[in-house]
Amino acid sequence: MDVPSLQVKSSKHTYPIIVRPGCRTSLYDYLVQYLDGASRYFLITDDQVASLYLEEIESSFPNSEKIKSYILPSGEQSKSMNQYEKAITAALEFKLDRKSVIIAVGGGVVGDLGGFVASTYMRGIRYVQVPTTLLAHDSSVGGKVGINHPLGKNMIGSFHPPSLVLYDPECLLSLPPKEWRSGFAEVIKHGFIADREFLKWLTEEISSFDQVDMALLTEMLIRSIKVKAKIVQEDEQESGIRAFLNFGHTLGHAIEGEMGYGKLTHGEAVAIGMKFALRLSERYFQTKLDYEPYLSVMEKLGYELDIPHNLNVEQLIHRMKLDKKSYNQVINFVLLEQIGKATLVEIKEEILIDELTGKVG
Amino acid sequence: MDVPSLQVKSSKHTYPIIVRPGCRTSLYDYLVQYLDGASRYFLITDDQVASLYLEEIESSFPNSEKIKSYILPSGEQSKSMNQYEKAITAALEFKLDRKSVIIAVGGGVVGDLGGFVASTYMRGIRYVQVPTTLLAHDSSVGGKVGINHPLGKNMIGSFHPPSLVLYDPECLLSLPPKEWRSGFAEVIKHGFIADREFLKWLTEEISSFDQVDMALLTEMLIRSIKVKAKIVQEDEQESGIRAFLNFGHTLGHAIEGEMGYGKLTHGEAVAIGMKFALRLSERYFQTKLDYEPYLSVMEKLGYELDIPHNLNVEQLIHRMKLDKKSYNQVINFVLLEQIGKATLVEIKEEILIDELTGKVG
Repeated sequence: MDVPSLQVKSSKHTYPIIVRPGCRTSLYDYLVQYLDGASRYFLITDDQVASLYLEEIESSFPNSEKIKSYILPSGEQSKSMNQYEKAITAALEFKLDRKSVIIAVGGGVVGDLGGFVASTYMRGIRYVQVPTTLLAHDSSVGGKVGINHPLGKNMIGSFHPPSLVLYDPECLLSLPPKEWRSGFAEVIKHGFIADREFLKWLTEEISSFDQVDMALLTEMLIRSIKVKAKIVQEDEQESGIRAFLNFGHTLGHAIEGEMGYGKLTHGEAVAIGMKFALRLSERYFQTKLDYEPYLSVMEKLGYELDIPHNLNVEQLIHRMKLDKKSYNQVINFVLLEQIGKATLVEIKEEILIDELTGKVG
Repeated sequence: MDVPSLQVKSSKHTYPIIVRPGCRTSLYDYLVQYLDGASRYFLITDDQVASLYLEEIESSFPNSEKIKSYILPSGEQSKSMNQYEKAITAALEFKLDRKSVIIAVGGGVVGDLGGFVASTYMRGIRYVQVPTTLLAHDSSVGGKVGINHPLGKNMIGSFHPPSLVLYDPECLLSLPPKEWRSGFAEVIKHGFIADREFLKWLTEEISSFDQVDMALLTEMLIRSIKVKAKIVQEDEQESGIRAFLNFGHTLGHAIEGEMGYGKLTHGEAVAIGMKFALRLSERYFQTKLDYEPYLSVMEKLGYELDIPHNLNVEQLIHRMKLDKKSYNQVINFVLLEQIGKATLVEIKEEILIDELTGKVG
């Protein structure tokens, strides 16, 4: 019935990604086409997404006894041990078995939590990502799933590739500008680390989040996912180049953590981290990257690119040492040798203090 | 310095199993020999094991700042979400990173919990199994890790192969008879499902747990682990023959659950389940298996092989439907076509009720 937009090869299986306007309303048909012998479906979503899409998704299922929906409170706070445990309990009560399928409908929080439930339920069952935000175009591909710990974001999790990603770009039309910015930062990031042509196309085509039409949006999503898919195919478990996807994230995560998750969106924090990493790249490689035109488009789109002035340098550095790219208390940064060419570099604490001081506190 | 007793090929890597009397006292040397570039060590054990072995193990480490020990209360109750979360918190506080190694020193509870912490800490780090019980000769090989849920044993977990299994049979000498029985049931099980010769050897050589000498014990462990290793190499993720290892476990788990985990040992419950499955095998395949001599050795070793009479048939069946081998509410049983030849079979509820009634309640 349908040809996938992309296929991603993982260590366990190859899974299709379908980006198609309106596909949410025939979700069940896609499940039947792409997943063999699913015994039951456990749909995880949040209250905001549920109010928008749950009815039309559920009504695509012919047998309502085979599907159970589980609704989280929306927000990063739901990526917690407590919500994880509750979802597992509900799945056990619904008698999900090893041939059942979890369907995560929502943004990154729902996808990460739903995927982590799937990865650990009876030692791992299949799941489907149905992203409803722009940010989730990134997190829904590649199989990184997990939850937060009070001591650090995404500290608990696993690698568990989805069996299908079903993306309806129509869902993005309901997003507020803040959410567009959160997701678009990862789109831009994919350009910065691996595809200069895409970055140029992006900043030429998109200068406001109001003007994005469905065809342009679909093309953008597929091109952005392609960058992500290529990298995770080469390095699923992040022993090498997958770390490049963390461009902007080392400081970004630290800022998110310091401000309290949910104050800044993920992408807004990453955007600040990217500007910082670009400046650090120029210093480290003694080069000019001419990144200003891209940043100025980002500012036009409403990004605040400077580090919030109430943050503490020591605390930021402490958090960066907890970053998953750091070993033995040494901080590693993704930097750019050129636009479109990333590399992982160990950065001395003194240099970070020097770069952060004056910008912070 | 050393040649492994066995090597096990997993989907991620090949790992050595070393069964050697006294090896616990030079644990650090083995880590250095077999694990590259470990940044820090987080040792998980329980209070009973700690009082016996922790000092000699810790003193094998030249740098005490690189190792942190974390001590659980002993017992199945520690395989809980609560203990899992606490251990993760302690690991984060000790600043374990992706190059760190978790060392699980103890029985199945410690190995399963420690392995699950390793499998989900920063999306998975390496771990070493150091079994100190007979039962753990089984659980420490094959990468099944996890914790219990009030609604079912091992319902939360993953497949995460260890990087090294280091087994000191001297630790078994301190075990009480109940613990010998718990572990020996899995040794016998390996004979029943895959190696009739081994089963005969076992029941000839071992008729009391007092007479076991170190050479015999080492041979027994290696032969038993070989059966397990061969099966998990062929089917790591339990999509086929790995289920055979659950011989005796479908009813065994249900009995454990009904009585409250920890009342009967795991192996004692599995022994009851094996007798039940042997009888069911004869009925299903209309054959005689001549298993009585093996059961009579088991009785001599102190096993109670009949189902405790205070249990409820309906509740046992309800629990068996929650078994991970069950799909769509259908109960699957591992049965034997012959001694040494297992197979997975769907058993009708009526037959189970018939077989259980009269034996229970």
